[in-house]
Amino acid sequence: MELLNKLKWRYATKAMNGKVVPQGKVDNIIEAARLAPTSSGLQPFEIIVVTNKDIKEKIRKVAWNQSVVTECSHLLVFAAWDTYTEERINYMFDLTNEIRGFKNEGWENYRQQLLNSYPQKDAEENFQHASKQAYIAFSQALAAAAFEKVDATPMEGFTPDAVDDILGLREKGLRSAVLLPIGYRDASDDWLVDLPKVRKSTDDLITLVD
Amino acid sequence: MELLNKLKWRYATKAMNGKVVPQGKVDNIIEAARLAPTSSGLQPFEIIVVTNKDIKEKIRKVAWNQSVVTECSHLLVFAAWDTYTEERINYMFDLTNEIRGFKNEGWENYRQQLLNSYPQKDAEENFQHASKQAYIAFSQALAAAAFEKVDATPMEGFTPDAVDDILGLREKGLRSAVLLPIGYRDASDDWLVDLPKVRKSTDDLITLVD
Repeated sequence: MELLNKLKWRYATKAMNGKVVPQGKVDNIIEAARLAPTSSGLQPFEIIVVTNKDIKEKIRKVAWNQSVVTECSHLLVFAAWDTYTEERINYMFDLTNEIRGFKNEGWENYRQQLLNSYPQKDAEENFQHASKQAYIAFSQALAAAAFEKVDATPMEGFTPDAVDDILGLREKGLRSAVLLPIGYRDASDDWLVDLPKVRKSTDDLITLVD
Repeated sequence: MELLNKLKWRYATKAMNGKVVPQGKVDNIIEAARLAPTSSGLQPFEIIVVTNKDIKEKIRKVAWNQSVVTECSHLLVFAAWDTYTEERINYMFDLTNEIRGFKNEGWENYRQQLLNSYPQKDAEENFQHASKQAYIAFSQALAAAAFEKVDATPMEGFTPDAVDDILGLREKGLRSAVLLPIGYRDASDDWLVDLPKVRKSTDDLITLVD
């Protein structure tokens, strides 16, 4: 199956060569993230696409000095909502009504149900929930990069508060969740490029209840 | 791009017809989850594959009575580690050394770094982190299902503690994170099947920092 071939090809690239990824490919990678499903369809995240050299340098300093942060073509910062608010929930429900061209009672009841639960919850709990939705999109972007033969480095090794500060995310009600530098491998400088992929066996991964 | 076509085709199926998904397709969907990258390569989750009718019925009762839980062919339960332990971390590092056929000082130092941090952290924090890794795999399984023209329903609407209890997950050091019923749509009974997909515009999703 084509997807499996792509997933076998990709790896967490440790060195990139600075080559620029064509805009069409970047657009497709972002489109995969945009199409990803999220809880109640709220899409509680945004993507900051960093190509600015100085900003990349600053982020690298708070990302364990990982070289791909500056060697990449585009640094995608997946930033989740810091919490769920009435305004944010209403925005997506209104958008749904607008796109579908009608209001539906069941759907409106569901809106009320969410309005009566999320905004009252602890912001940290809401952020964790929103982060998971960002991870769904992040994962689809990662798969899309592989389809475009673009290398990528899934990255949690950074100080979120510092990245938030550099990009001014908190003021926008966002918090950085996970990074995805995309670009092209520098095979001559990447210790991981030729090592076999390590995964648990299927037997260790799954349990059948039949 | 082929992946985008598949992501456009898929939708959160609300009614399924009970038809069984061929084993080869199920295997590919699980393989996509197995290949998914995870933080430090720890793969801190397992997948419980439920086909048993009685167990599905029990889970449906604690999953807002959503019909796809019983109408699906296979119910995939993504269960994350309840915490990170020394044993679990060592298992994956040992497996890496075994598969690669050598020990590496940098890698062993990294093992120590993880052993000195994760097990000392709060179990809930570790579970939340492990859950995010499960979501990466869940998202790739979802994409793989679309490639196999198998319908699927990303599902957070369930009571995790009750699912843990039904499947005996806590005793195994696991906690349910997210469900993925897979099967085939019952188009005649699914209110969502013909409605357009609703997503934020790309402009609302991304911010360029160039």
